Formats: sequence, structure tokens, C-alpha cells
Amino acid sequence: MASQPASPFPQTAADAPSAVASPPLPTVGIVGLGLIGGSLGLDLCRQGYRVLGVSRRLETCQRAVARGAVTAASQALASLAVADVIVLCTPLDALLPTVQQLLPHLSPETVLTDVGSVKQPVVATIAPLWPWFVGGHPMAGTTEQGIDAALENLFLHRPYVLTPTAQTPVTAVAQVERLARALGAAIYHCDPAEHDQAVAWISHLPVMVSTGLFQAWLREPSPTVRRLAQQLASSGFCDTSRVGGGNPELGTLMARYNREPLLASLRAYRQGLDQIIDAIEAEDWAAIAEVLHQGHQARPAFLE
Amino acid sequence: MASQPASPFPQTAADAPSAVASPPLPTVGIVGLGLIGGSLGLDLCRQGYRVLGVSRRLETCQRAVARGAVTAASQALASLAVADVIVLCTPLDALLPTVQQLLPHLSPETVLTDVGSVKQPVVATIAPLWPWFVGGHPMAGTTEQGIDAALENLFLHRPYVLTPTAQTPVTAVAQVERLARALGAAIYHCDPAEHDQAVAWISHLPVMVSTGLFQAWLREPSPTVRRLAQQLASSGFCDTSRVGGGNPELGTLMARYNREPLLASLRAYRQGLDQIIDAIEAEDWAAIAEVLHQGHQARPAFLE
Repeated sequence: MASQPASPFPQTAADAPSAVASPPLPTVGIVGLGLIGGSLGLDLCRQGYRVLGVSRRLETCQRAVARGAVTAASQALASLAVADVIVLCTPLDALLPTVQQLLPHLSPETVLTDVGSVKQPVVATIAPLWPWFVGGHPMAGTTEQGIDAALENLFLHRPYVLTPTAQTPVTAVAQVERLARALGAAIYHCDPAEHDQAVAWISHLPVMVSTGLFQAWLREPSPTVRRLAQQLASSGFCDTSRVGGGNPELGTLMARYNREPLLASLRAYRQGLDQIIDAIEAEDWAAIAEVLHQGHQARPAFLE
Repeated sequence: MASQPASPFPQTAADAPSAVASPPLPTVGIVGLGLIGGSLGLDLCRQGYRVLGVSRRLETCQRAVARGAVTAASQALASLAVADVIVLCTPLDALLPTVQQLLPHLSPETVLTDVGSVKQPVVATIAPLWPWFVGGHPMAGTTEQGIDAALENLFLHRPYVLTPTAQTPVTAVAQVERLARALGAAIYHCDPAEHDQAVAWISHLPVMVSTGLFQAWLREPSPTVRRLAQQLASSGFCDTSRVGGGNPELGTLMARYNREPLLASLRAYRQGLDQIIDAIEAEDWAAIAEVLHQGHQARPAFLE
């Protein structure tokens, strides 16, 4: 951690006069001031952290300052040279170029972390460039985007997954955990690949399965039946189709960056679907009842 | 329609002294006093209809009277001899035996209707036995069952589908429409087979697609990943998996009674799923973006 010369607080545990003294609040950098970066900043500023924001757009910098999501903001990555921890909140496809531009400005041992929804390719790409990188995924969001959509307490009681490797310094992990705790999030540690397979099951597979309802319905040959289906659709269809009718760009990025785990989930899904179709063709109602019973039994453990 | 000797109102249009006089309220029979039958009765009783209920269980009869869901109730189908319109609210598998026991007690031209969620097999079975039968499907419900779950205004603004055939007497259809209007429902007419294919798309296919998420997840070989998926699941998974985690008996009955339309939907769904898997395997991100875009575009027309 970079030292903070102006701080009146002891810098290390050895300096601490008593066990109750807290380490000084680190200076936090946030790159990308959208829904996630802005919401992180709102909570951290409110708790007294010094938060330095970076956005490519001047207007976003100004809005972030006006909303109290950052202490100060700049369009220059060089402004983050004084940060102790930097949270990368850009879209997945901007992550690597951002890191490459950022690295020359950093002090040694500056902690880097990200908020991307896919972890294995991110960790595999960035950790070799910067050992003080900790993969992170705060699992919260809304359907809105941009600094004006940022919300206080967005991460409260939500999962915040960290994916350190055996090589990640424990003090780097501790720095990111401290931020996650400040947000009131529930911290999980896991392997990057395990994270990616888990989110394939509960987030990326459901998007594809859900959008498949529309793909199937478009194959209905009768315009009368297609229209009637629209007219009669109610809460069941509404819920099952919700994530499949969401932001197409986001869904495509998910598939692209989490391709292998998503394919593994989709192939397992197709096997299960084939079993269901076979059982209905064979009029094996006991098998269908068993499938539905397993779903009925399994679902409560997925709800909080 | 059976006449109502005690009625002070004119019995036919020819008897009517003026255009504003309404026909007398018919006496309504309800067989099966559960959520649907009980809710129908609550609304009709409140509007002054004479409602005669039949349940196999004495306790249910007593509860229905106490709740004001029926004017009177009996365990004997013979008590419905005086009804003008009888609504069959039994489960699908009890429908035919109920009709067979009921028919000997009916006056000619007594209108029969049902509330089953599948129409083609019901109409094909019952219409030949009783020409004054009108297939019906009021599309409302809750996750609860039984007379104590019955609610006022359950059908308000909800679709009420009628599936008369070319042979169904128009006066029979008018009688059932009158009840549907009294409930405040939105009336739709369609062919029984068109109804069944439409509900396969928006109700029965989503149940199978949704429960498939659990079938797939159960194939995950890593206990750590299976557990992590449960811990990280949030609103997206919750919504997509809701109808698949519902009542297994109901889902099995749906599949059983709407087998062919459901299979047609499932086969079309599998074709769409194969296209999605093929596109992700081929890294054809434009194709995935197009699929997700079609879902995003299609969904609003399914919501009211």
C-alpha cells in the first residue's frame, strides 16, 4: 500500500499505540464512472474515503463530482498515481487496454481490482501484468446505465466475489475485502474458473434459456396462434422471459467472455431437455413428475 | 335455458315490456369448490346470482356456504337439476367421470362449461355427449388451492377463453359469456386446438424450459460449483426458475393433457437452442446479438 504522508494515523500495526486504532482509509481510484463505479463511489465517499474518479468523458466527471460519487475526477489515468486501491469499472472489452495505459502511472504495490462478471480470462490476462491484481465481482445492478443511475447501497447484502490466486499477495486481498465490507456486501472467495461456471449456471444460461422462448415462438407457423399467445401471456411467461428480453449487448458480451463455461451449461441443459422431450413422447408421466419434483425440491436453496 | 318459475322478470325477449329489461339471472351450478370454483362463486353470489355448489367433501360444502361462495351446497350432483348453467371446476382428470354422472340429472338445454387449461381433448370428449357444452378457460390463479384460497375479483381483467365449435348453440355461448362478463374478464373466442397451442407457448413450454435449469445444474460435476451457484443466485435466476419450481402434479397434468402441442413447442424450442449453441461454438457473436435482439424486441407485445 502506498503511504499517505498527510495522515495523522499510524501507518502500520507496529506503530499502533493500541489495538483499537484502525488503519488509515486508503485512497481509492475508480476507472469508469457508470452504474457500478458511481454506486461504489457514492458509498465510499459517504464513509469518508478519498475517491478519485476517471472517465473518458468530461461531462461524466462533472456529474460524478456533483452527485458526490467521487472526491475529485479527471479524464487522465495519471491522476490515479496517488491511489492505494484502484477499482476498474469499465466494460469487459475495455479492461485490458485500460490496464495497459494505467500501469506506467502506478506506485509498486498499488492494489488493482475489477468488477467484471467473468473472472478466469480477466485474471489470466491481468495478473501476469500486475501481481497486485485481485479479481472481483460485486453482483448487483439495475437495468439502468450511467452515472445518473448510480445508487447508494447498491451492494448492501449482495454477493461480492473475490478470486485471488495462490500468487495474489494476502495484503492485496485484504485491501479489496475492506472495500467490500464498507459496502455491506457478503464476501465470497473462489477460484476464477469456479466463479465463471457458477455464474454460467445462474446468470448466463438463464439468459439463453429465456430468450429461447422467443426463438421458439417465432417458429409457430400460425399467425392466429402467435397473436393469441401474446394476448394470453401472463405472469408465468413474463417472469420466465424477463432476462431473455434484456439488454442484447450485455448478453452477447457474457456469451463471448464466458464462452466455455456457458457452452458446458448449455450442453448439460440440452441433455436435460432431451430427456424431458423423450419422456413426454413416451408418455412416461412418472419421469416428468420426477423432473418437476426435483425442480420443486431444488429451488428453495437458490433463494436467499 | 330452464325457466325460473319464481322470477318476477319476463322470461324471453318477446315478453319484455321494454328494451331496457335484462333477462333474469340464471341459476348457476358449480362442481368443484376449490380456488377456481370458489372464486367464481364469490363474484357471482355478490352480484345476486343463485349459485348451487357441489363438492365431494361435506366440509368443503360447509366452508363454501360460510364464505358466501355459494347460495347452497350439496355433495349430490342431482342438486344441480335446477341449474341453467353449470361450470365444471374439477381437475382435468375428473372432468369426464363427473360429466357422465351429471348428465342424467340435467334438463335439456342446460348449458355446461368447464375451466380446464386444455381445450381440444375436453371439447372432443364432452361436446359429443352434451351439445350444450362450451369449452372455457378463465386464465387466473394463485399458488394456493382449496376453498379457503378463493378470492374475489380473481378473474377481473384476466383472459377468459371460450372455444365453441361450429355446432355449439349460440345461446349456450351467450350464457357463458354473460358469466365471464359478470366476472369482469376479457373474453376471447378461438378454436380449441389454437387455444391449446397458444397456452403451450406461454404456459406449458415455460414450465418445462424453467425446470430444465435445475435438470442441467444437477449435471454439474463439482459440488463446490453447485453450492456456489446456489449462493450467488439472484433475481434473474429466481424469475427464470419460478414456474419450473412450481406444483409438480399440475405440471405433469399439463404435459399429459396437452401432449402434442407441448411437444411441438418443445421441438421448436430445441431447434432454437441448437442454433444458439452452434453460434456460440462458432463464435458468431453477430448471430447471438441478433437472437437476443429479437427477444428484446418481441417481449413487450407479450406484456399487457
